[in-house]
Amino acid sequence: MIVVMKLAATKEHVAAIIERVEEVGCKTHVIVGAERTVIGVIGDGRTLDRRQIGRMIGVEKVMPISKPYKGASREFKPEDTIIQVGDVTIGGKDLVVMAGPCSVEGRSQLLEVAHACREAGAHILRGGAYKPRSSPYSFQGLGEDGLRYLAEAREATGMPIITEVMEPALVPLVCEYADILQVGARNMQNYALLNAIGESGHPVLLKRSFSGTITEWLMSAEYILSHGNNDVMLCERGIRANETETRNTFDINAIPVIKHLSHLPIIADPSHATGRWEYVGAGAKAAVAAGADGVILEVHPQPDQAWSDGRQSLKPEKFAKLVRQMRAVAQAVERDVPANRKPASLNGHDLSVVPVSL
Amino acid sequence: MIVVMKLAATKEHVAAIIERVEEVGCKTHVIVGAERTVIGVIGDGRTLDRRQIGRMIGVEKVMPISKPYKGASREFKPEDTIIQVGDVTIGGKDLVVMAGPCSVEGRSQLLEVAHACREAGAHILRGGAYKPRSSPYSFQGLGEDGLRYLAEAREATGMPIITEVMEPALVPLVCEYADILQVGARNMQNYALLNAIGESGHPVLLKRSFSGTITEWLMSAEYILSHGNNDVMLCERGIRANETETRNTFDINAIPVIKHLSHLPIIADPSHATGRWEYVGAGAKAAVAAGADGVILEVHPQPDQAWSDGRQSLKPEKFAKLVRQMRAVAQAVERDVPANRKPASLNGHDLSVVPVSL
Amino acid sequence: MIVVMKLAATKEHVAAIIERVEEVGCKTHVIVGAERTVIGVIGDGRTLDRRQIGRMIGVEKVMPISKPYKGASREFKPEDTIIQVGDVTIGGKDLVVMAGPCSVEGRSQLLEVAHACREAGAHILRGGAYKPRSSPYSFQGLGEDGLRYLAEAREATGMPIITEVMEPALVPLVCEYADILQVGARNMQNYALLNAIGESGHPVLLKRSFSGTITEWLMSAEYILSHGNNDVMLCERGIRANETETRNTFDINAIPVIKHLSHLPIIADPSHATGRWEYVGAGAKAAVAAGADGVILEVHPQPDQAWSDGRQSLKPEKFAKLVRQMRAVAQAVERDVPANRKPASLNGHDLSVVPVSL
Amino acid sequence: MIVVMKLAATKEHVAAIIERVEEVGCKTHVIVGAERTVIGVIGDGRTLDRRQIGRMIGVEKVMPISKPYKGASREFKPEDTIIQVGDVTIGGKDLVVMAGPCSVEGRSQLLEVAHACREAGAHILRGGAYKPRSSPYSFQGLGEDGLRYLAEAREATGMPIITEVMEPALVPLVCEYADILQVGARNMQNYALLNAIGESGHPVLLKRSFSGTITEWLMSAEYILSHGNNDVMLCERGIRANETETRNTFDINAIPVIKHLSHLPIIADPSHATGRWEYVGAGAKAAVAAGADGVILEVHPQPDQAWSDGRQSLKPEKFAKLVRQMRAVAQAVERDVPANRKPASLNGHDLSVVPVSL
Repeated sequence: MIVVMKLAATKEHVAAIIERVEEVGCKTHVIVGAERTVIGVIGDGRTLDRRQIGRMIGVEKVMPISKPYKGASREFKPEDTIIQVGDVTIGGKDLVVMAGPCSVEGRSQLLEVAHACREAGAHILRGGAYKPRSSPYSFQGLGEDGLRYLAEAREATGMPIITEVMEPALVPLVCEYADILQVGARNMQNYALLNAIGESGHPVLLKRSFSGTITEWLMSAEYILSHGNNDVMLCERGIRANETETRNTFDINAIPVIKHLSHLPIIADPSHATGRWEYVGAGAKAAVAAGADGVILEVHPQPDQAWSDGRQSLKPEKFAKLVRQMRAVAQAVERDVPANRKPASLNGHDLSVVPVSL
Repeated sequence: MIVVMKLAATKEHVAAIIERVEEVGCKTHVIVGAERTVIGVIGDGRTLDRRQIGRMIGVEKVMPISKPYKGASREFKPEDTIIQVGDVTIGGKDLVVMAGPCSVEGRSQLLEVAHACREAGAHILRGGAYKPRSSPYSFQGLGEDGLRYLAEAREATGMPIITEVMEPALVPLVCEYADILQVGARNMQNYALLNAIGESGHPVLLKRSFSGTITEWLMSAEYILSHGNNDVMLCERGIRANETETRNTFDINAIPVIKHLSHLPIIADPSHATGRWEYVGAGAKAAVAAGADGVILEVHPQPDQAWSDGRQSLKPEKFAKLVRQMRAVAQAVERDVPANRKPASLNGHDLSVVPVSL
Repeated sequence: MIVVMKLAATKEHVAAIIERVEEVGCKTHVIVGAERTVIGVIGDGRTLDRRQIGRMIGVEKVMPISKPYKGASREFKPEDTIIQVGDVTIGGKDLVVMAGPCSVEGRSQLLEVAHACREAGAHILRGGAYKPRSSPYSFQGLGEDGLRYLAEAREATGMPIITEVMEPALVPLVCEYADILQVGARNMQNYALLNAIGESGHPVLLKRSFSGTITEWLMSAEYILSHGNNDVMLCERGIRANETETRNTFDINAIPVIKHLSHLPIIADPSHATGRWEYVGAGAKAAVAAGADGVILEVHPQPDQAWSDGRQSLKPEKFAKLVRQMRAVAQAVERDVPANRKPASLNGHDLSVVPVSL
Repeated sequence: MIVVMKLAATKEHVAAIIERVEEVGCKTHVIVGAERTVIGVIGDGRTLDRRQIGRMIGVEKVMPISKPYKGASREFKPEDTIIQVGDVTIGGKDLVVMAGPCSVEGRSQLLEVAHACREAGAHILRGGAYKPRSSPYSFQGLGEDGLRYLAEAREATGMPIITEVMEPALVPLVCEYADILQVGARNMQNYALLNAIGESGHPVLLKRSFSGTITEWLMSAEYILSHGNNDVMLCERGIRANETETRNTFDINAIPVIKHLSHLPIIADPSHATGRWEYVGAGAKAAVAAGADGVILEVHPQPDQAWSDGRQSLKPEKFAKLVRQMRAVAQAVERDVPANRKPASLNGHDLSVVPVSL
């Protein structure tokens, strides 16, 4: 439920409500607005007497939250959540472009791609150090070495980094290196992992599972939020349906649905959602037109030699062209894909063009 | 297979090829280009000796068509098919906007919506006179009366009309009234209907079935094409997957896939693909950004009183705003949604603003 | 709604109800039981005042039907529908086995398979004379010749025949030859076809569409029932999901669900539901154990030379073994697969073993 | 690849092959048969020269494994895997029945259900101590207390226990109590969990994920097998498709497909696969007829008061009847559901009927 305080309510009134709520085992999320304070109550509401709360001093009104995902719902928090990662703002008017290779394959590969992505206009660098693979015999990622290369690439290009974490025990280590954690589709309902990430407080991108409903996806976000971490982005990466021309079916509807039901930023992953580089551009532009807050794309200089997902990776020059096209579409829907302004660090890496404009 | 003729090939050489091909029961589709002629051979190619054809006089080379849909494939016809319906051109740089009510509910309802759609920027008027309904007890459409009202609305607004035909026996009647026939999702593999439409030669919009693959959809187009009708548009209207927040799952990927595999125009139907008016706008803009050649939208002045599909119908003013937004997105991807130029007929219907600009 | 008459109600009372109901455009379905009469009212119930009917003489009570499929629901008719086709009873304690080739390929092929099926224990012969094929270039069936061969095979073996009809215009012709009409998955919502079959009064087997829900399937049955034809069997033939090891996903749940919601017989088609002969036997036995009223199976003496569906056809000896296994399972669930008792006609076809026991 | 040794091959020959294989980083799985020894080689086979191995002393032939799941494939191990859990044998001619409540709700609830299940004929007791719930606000299980109650119920009834483990860190603890670990559908691709279970060597039941393909499922089994644990059972629990009358779509085809492709036992879960107790019996009998090696069922004395999954739980008397029906079907397909012979412990729990016969 949501407790809306009166304009004249004092801190003491708010504290009394919080105390009352926490007594019965529920948690509170306090939003102090310019004019009035709102208290979100999360937990098993059955133990709370709504009318009794409504009669407490300073309370204007008490409203139920109809959705099973309390903290993730727009009822709970009507304004968009904005997440700050370094100097990149996610969830506002400006769109974010995350790009990089599927897997970190080595130091020089990553630095090469990272520079190319940055020059093409990316804001955040992606790359997998721990790879969830269907086969135990496939390449499983470089592990901590991969994380180190990512950190070096951040140093070199100025881009924050996002990388996947697959098990609770590795959350602290990955947090040491990454600016944003990624939860893959296979782990959308790995609750021990979600709880560990919730407690880490680290920004996270939560991918939708292969056949997860939007409600289940928001419930998984709720696991993270309910452990105190509000910096959650959702990522639509395609679901499974009956079509075989593409690797997945890009549920473009999910974008306006999430914007309608939730305040969390929604990022699209057209690389996985199509699975073929020929279709990635159309998917990316569609996502921008539909209202996504950003895209995450796989970029590789030699897709046919990539260790994973080469079939859906864009070459840097195609990616650069796509960034310009996405910017045009973003402006057509009154948003923008800003140039990546931060100067790249110059320690050993000669980067002349700052800011990048393509 | 495709027979590419030499620059110097004569009409007689072409005629000899055609004779040879038709002898074994195959059909030909001859494309006379500015420089050279190409002969498409359709039918059971196993009865033809490809090398023998290759040795005939005037033949440059013979190429197989790898796809099961021969005439619908881009291998067969690399350039986009452009369909002219009245003064509306479908499949070129300009996008087409088809709009109107789900069902024709009566004369005055239809005229009202038709004028509103035209003023808002629609090029073609949609409306169902024969309605496929899951229940035999639901409203099944006004039948020929509905067709007459559509024809009157065309007269009044200057917009060509599109309407559904559900059975072979009704194809001649519907052709008398409609400028474009529509095949609904339930009938995508109603082959008797496809054959009758193929023989009618009338422009047709072929919707994808609820779980039809893209290959099956193109094979259904092939039924129409192989009966001599080249004016086929495809329509993505959402498929079935596991999500319940929306009526269907809009397979946005289908747009670039169809553009890649086929030369036929692809139209999107965000009304059915989302099933909720709140999400129709995002779907429509996404379709334009992804490369669709047009959209078809349900518009109703009082959606909550519509006899069918009110939940997904836009009010005229929302539709007018959406046309402007789609135009902006179209221009961002180097296409356009042109103003509907043709003056509405003035016989009794007072329409002052021509051309419409909103 | 359902009008339950009092024990003492007379024919005149019943007639008065019928007259009142038909006045407002609804239809009635009268079930005269041993003790009392029940009147089913089908049509747009909104035009009838339920309380008014309840006050008419002889009426015990009036109950609404909650399902959208009125005539097909068990609420409307609690006892199982039993369909008599020649001397074969479908829907009772005994299960029916329908078998034969996918396509009628010729006279001698069909006679050979028909005899083999009969000797193996089949009760009804299946075979396609009109074939719905995804490609217009594939074999489309022998048409009326195929029907004639089927009739001859019936003559020779004593088995009633079932064959598909694909368009309304052909319903009268197919009814001349076939004992049971079949509606294929692609035509489950071809309403013109369903209406024509409804009016024919001929027994029909209605296959579920590729992604049709059980409600939609029952609504399609309702189209046939509401046109006066009560002899409707449903056929589960697999739906589309995400698995590729099999051609379709056999929704075994549909069997108990249909038995729960409807009084119509339910037949399983494990050939299509699995798509591979290796798995057909397991599917058939599962269907029997789950409560199906029969199975329809593809049998071909040389599956690898079949013109269609060879991958899922059983050889006659495998089929004979399967009939014995199905009988054992049927008996385990207190039903039976009876031996096919009727002597085969002896006009020229030497059939020694009558009745067949394997 | 699989290395088949000659009849005359010695232990030294076998050891030499193993040494050669392990040198290049591959693992071996040695099957010593009555007549000859077979060595399975698992790992990245590209590093091994197959012809070179073939020339080593004592080698009869070397065969590739075509499936991506090596150790799980029937090519690798043609004979069925049989798993012994206490005195219960899983994977042989006899079927296993696992039953119990969805969640362990308390000591007395569990003991009551456990006795009822045992008396009704169950061989193994199921019950969740750690519950994966879509909502973070739902009951998450009693944790270690639940495990203790399960152990006590085992003591009381003599039935081995199966319970779910959701995170790698808890594997050792759950192994202390449980006879069989369960991996739930949400965790089918939680590789860290699979690896930990692989290393534990504990028998495990691996559920298929909501939209996992059979190949992906076997690949997940491969994660466990490749870590040295061969006691893997697979569990089909329904997948997601387009039907809403049931909670999931029971992919009955998976049973014969798994038997064809793999040597691992396959267990069916009709409770989840249907989601409604009315349909559980039909699903269970179908699974037995299709060739499952056992079933796992939810049983609760008061389903409407169950803390989870009450809608799909059977009352003990219905379950007892179902066991008898499954036994009849099992015998019809030449298998059996044996009576549970082991006397229940009598320490304080008064159990008069031993062995149970119903």
